[in-house]
Formats: sequence, C-alpha cells, structure tokens
Amino acid sequence: MSLRMELGDNRYDIVIERGCLNRAGTLLNLDRKVCIVTDAGVPEQYARRVADQCREPMIVTVDPGEDTKTMQTVTRICEAMLDRGFSRKDCVAAVGGGMVGDLAGFAAACFMRGIDFYNIPTTLLSQVDSSIGGKTGVNLNGVKNIVGAFWQPRGVLIDPDTLETLPPRLRAEGMAEYVKMALCFDEAMFRDMENSDPWADTEKALHNALSLKKMVVEADERESGLRKLLNFGHTIGHGVESAAAGALYHGECVAIGMMPMCSDAVRARLQPVLEKLGLPVSTDLDKETIWAAMQHDKKSDSTGFSAVFVEEIGKAYAKTISFAEMKAILEGAWQA
Amino acid sequence: MSLRMELGDNRYDIVIERGCLNRAGTLLNLDRKVCIVTDAGVPEQYARRVADQCREPMIVTVDPGEDTKTMQTVTRICEAMLDRGFSRKDCVAAVGGGMVGDLAGFAAACFMRGIDFYNIPTTLLSQVDSSIGGKTGVNLNGVKNIVGAFWQPRGVLIDPDTLETLPPRLRAEGMAEYVKMALCFDEAMFRDMENSDPWADTEKALHNALSLKKMVVEADERESGLRKLLNFGHTIGHGVESAAAGALYHGECVAIGMMPMCSDAVRARLQPVLEKLGLPVSTDLDKETIWAAMQHDKKSDSTGFSAVFVEEIGKAYAKTISFAEMKAILEGAWQA
Repeated sequence: MSLRMELGDNRYDIVIERGCLNRAGTLLNLDRKVCIVTDAGVPEQYARRVADQCREPMIVTVDPGEDTKTMQTVTRICEAMLDRGFSRKDCVAAVGGGMVGDLAGFAAACFMRGIDFYNIPTTLLSQVDSSIGGKTGVNLNGVKNIVGAFWQPRGVLIDPDTLETLPPRLRAEGMAEYVKMALCFDEAMFRDMENSDPWADTEKALHNALSLKKMVVEADERESGLRKLLNFGHTIGHGVESAAAGALYHGECVAIGMMPMCSDAVRARLQPVLEKLGLPVSTDLDKETIWAAMQHDKKSDSTGFSAVFVEEIGKAYAKTISFAEMKAILEGAWQA
Repeated sequence: MSLRMELGDNRYDIVIERGCLNRAGTLLNLDRKVCIVTDAGVPEQYARRVADQCREPMIVTVDPGEDTKTMQTVTRICEAMLDRGFSRKDCVAAVGGGMVGDLAGFAAACFMRGIDFYNIPTTLLSQVDSSIGGKTGVNLNGVKNIVGAFWQPRGVLIDPDTLETLPPRLRAEGMAEYVKMALCFDEAMFRDMENSDPWADTEKALHNALSLKKMVVEADERESGLRKLLNFGHTIGHGVESAAAGALYHGECVAIGMMPMCSDAVRARLQPVLEKLGLPVSTDLDKETIWAAMQHDKKSDSTGFSAVFVEEIGKAYAKTISFAEMKAILEGAWQA
C-alpha cells in the first residue's frame, strides 16, 4: 500500500510494502548520482541493495548514535558530494534510522541550497515518526535538532522486512510514536491497541500511524497549529533523552514523557498499553538534569512552554504554560 | 524611498534612505533577542548603532573575507544563540557586506529550522546584489556558496550614508552588479550610464538596480527561469574569483566575467562603461586554474553549463552549452 502526501508544491508517495527495497530503482529516480547515507549500525545489506539500483551510487557510512548528528558530519557529507562532482540534479538517499534521515535530509536541504532527498527508513521508529513531516536537522552542544531545515523528501520507501533485523528494544521504541498518534487523535485506534496485540500486524500499525500523521502534517505543513500536538510527550521526553545520555532510546523517552502530560484517567489506560509493548513508563533520572535540558526546548520562549496535554483520548490540545507550571508537572511526574 | 517585496507567503520592505540605520528600532522588530552578525572590517559603529536599538542585542563579530564564510562559522553563530537562550521568536540581523549577509542569513535559516532575519547591507555591492533574492550560504573547500538555503529576510535597511566609509575599490565593485542588471534587462538604463555619471546619484542607482532585481526575483522566486539571467557574468566570474584567491573582489570578477559573454557590439559598449566606473575588463590569471574552479559551478551538470549571454542590450538569455563550448569561450576571452 502507499500514501500520497500533498504539501503545497511538494507531492510524494510513501510506499509501505514488504520487499519494496528491492524495487527502489523503479519506485525512485536513481538514474543519476546518488549519495546514500547510512550508519555502521544499520545492516550493510540495505544500503548496498539500494546502491545496486543506482546509476552512480556513493555510500557514506557514518558512526551510529546521536553524537554523529552534527554540523561536522553534514559538512563531511557535502564535501563527499562536492568531491564526486554532484550537481543540482543529483540526490541524497537516507538508509537507516531517524538519525540518518535527519542528517542526510539536512545535507540534501542545504547542498547547493537544496537537492532531491529520498528517505528509506529501516527502523520502526523512523518509519512511523520521521518519514513524514519534512523535519531535518542536527544537534548542537547536546541540544537535539536545534539546527536544521524543513525539507520534504521526493519519496519514502518503508519496507517492513527491514524490521526483522531490528533488536527488540528498537522495535518497541517505534511503537511509542504509534501509541502517541492514537492517544492524541484516534480513540478507536487506541482501544484497538488495548484489546489486541499491536505486534500482530506491523504493516497495519505502520499504515494507521502514518495515516494519522499524514492528516496532521498536510493540514499544517508549517507547524503553526495542529502539528504542535505531535510534540505530545516530547517536551519532557527530550529532557529525559538528554539526561539519559544515550542510555534510553528516543521512543522510550517519549513513552516516559507522555505519562505526566495525561489526566489520571488517561494515564491509567496508557500505562498498561506501554507496558504491554515493552516500553518504560517512568525514570529515576535526576529531575534537575532533565529540567536543565528542557530549557533549550524549541517550544519554549521567555514566557514559558507550549505544552501538549491529553485529558480525553483522541483529543490532544496545546496550551502555553509558565516555566513554574512545567516545572511542577515534572516534579510531580512518575510518582508510584 | 522603499520597495515592497511580495514572494508567496513572504512580504517585506526594502527601505533605501539616508540615515535609516538610525531608525532600525522603529523600522524593524528589535524588541527581542537580536543576534547582530558583523565582521571586523565593517566600521564598528554600524553594528553598535543597531545594537543600541535592540532590547537584547548580542554582537557576533567574525573575521572579514570569504575564508570566514564556512559551516564552522555558522555553527559558531548558532552556538552563540544557543548559549544566550535564543528562541524561535528571536532574530538575526546582518550588518556588513555580502559575506556577512550570506553567513548570517544561513544561520537564521537553519537555527531552530528558521528564525527571522533582517539584512542591513553596508557595502554598495551587498546593497545592490544580495539584499534581494533570499540566497544565503557558505563556501566549502573553496567552492563558493555551495551549501546554503533560500531564506527571505523580514526586512532590509539600505542606508547610503554607510557608503561614505567604503574604500573606492569596494564602491566600484558594487556598480558592477548595477551594470549587469541594466545590460541584461533595461537598455534605457544602460544608455543613461553611458551618457552620465552613475556616481552622481547613488540613491537613484540603488533604486534602479533594486527595482530591476525585484521584478526578476518576484517573477521567479525559485530560480527556474528568468532569475537564471542574474547569473550573467557569474559563471566565468566565479572561476576568476576562485583563481584570484582574494586578490579580486566579487564585483570586479563579475565585470571580468561579463565581457566574454557579450556579442562584439555589446562588448564595445560595455567596456567603456566598466572602465569609467573603475572596474577591470580582463585578467591575466591562468585560464586552466579558472576552468578548474568553474567545474564546480552550481549551474553545471554532466551535460554542460547553463550560460547567460547578452547579444542585444536589455535582452539577456540563457542557454545550455557543452563543457567544450564553455571552455572555448574562456579560451577566447579578454583578447586585446
């Protein structure tokens, strides 16, 4: 199956299909120079399989982990393209998780002020979360995604077969964003998760989550309104992620970060779903450290935070709250 | 006087007015954190005058010269904003020449995926050339503007009084872009330059040149058609600029680069105008070195160059030519 995204002048297809990696050459325009960005933690076979379908492939393999997501690495990718004589008509393809997509997408956004970008996410989290939205970026001094661009891909390939090589914790973290989408926008979908095994049909889970995200992003390409709600769980989540310094995955931090932003009734339903999926629901990390990292949140300004709450499943809403109010929520979070 | 730019969702004013630097606080929204980027070659008073009109100014002074226009410097500017707790609602203001504008504009384009940018060009070249267009960017491994973004300013202030502190060669190079605009689009304006002293009324010259550029850029924000013509003189010009390694200014290189792209008849009229303005019309630099640098031109691809010609004044046109044809033009250039 596939989803067609329509965003102003941009239009592209997200193909969700077992084995679609083997058809990259027919689904995308790879009849040119292609800079394939992957990381050393991604099974090599995926980037190679894409490369085999390109006229002039070049594979740039970066170190895995958020520490690689820097301006220095973007510079390195651009230098590699420059060395190989890339022109405006050539392209970048990301093969890997969200880190690779953010990094490669930003390199595509700024090389020659923007060349074509294809995203081929191979982790559940990146398939659910970062394949729609056009957000690219890198970290700076430990602050996540603080430098970047909005840059839409020309095409996205999601091959659920790539999930077979994914370790269980990385599979679980991908589900956190699916839970988030359902909790924010679709009560029936959330009820489904409560009553059945979300792992039973990964393709359906992917399609559900992406359909919701598509609806939100198309309605609001520039993040002025509805799209803000996608940050549910991320304000505290990003703080937790910084404080954990690599010990927790992004999706795990989002799971932890969603809990304090729900009403008691919603939280009581959310917790068993997260636990069923193998996701954490609290953390012992130092709250001062979490709070320090939260100060750099892009959704904060001098007056406070734009925070997202769910008090009724399917009906997330955003509200600006003061620093003191946010701090109080954090202080009260994850009490037994 | 002022020009209003209308580019899709973007709308901003270019104020061209003696002394307008002193009114920055009323003409722009400086009631927030403002990262003022300037370079050590720009008279300090200009950045300070702007800073005095900001609620929370921070001045970042970089080294002058194209060597500073790097990803490293963009990173440094973003780090400075991060350290000072800049949010999405804060802004960047460039005070200086085109280098500062390109650099600061790119930092604004990618900090938090884009914050407001004001451009306050203080050299004639940057006032004529880089205050319209939304092109921002940095150099990489000696290749000019190869990494960057399209990012429109929220406002531009052009204060002709700043030209009083400008050395004569820097004033002259600014005129090269004005000559280019007239030669490409407006025969009457070019005739005026032939028959009178273009220095007599700098404000008028600025207004003429900017009106032409506005017309072109508004018609074609994304550089698909008409805007390509603004690259007249720049293909060879960029090669000359690389080869000169700092010994020639950008406008001087454009002057040199325009000469070979004209018909004989046009060249015969162009040369005296350039000479009258104190601009060079040829170079002794090694043509192989120039050619090597031209290979990295953003307007080239595997089939050749998109080159701009003027065979009739006011009627520039673009045409794709092969590498061999471009090389032949370079070989035949600047013969006595």
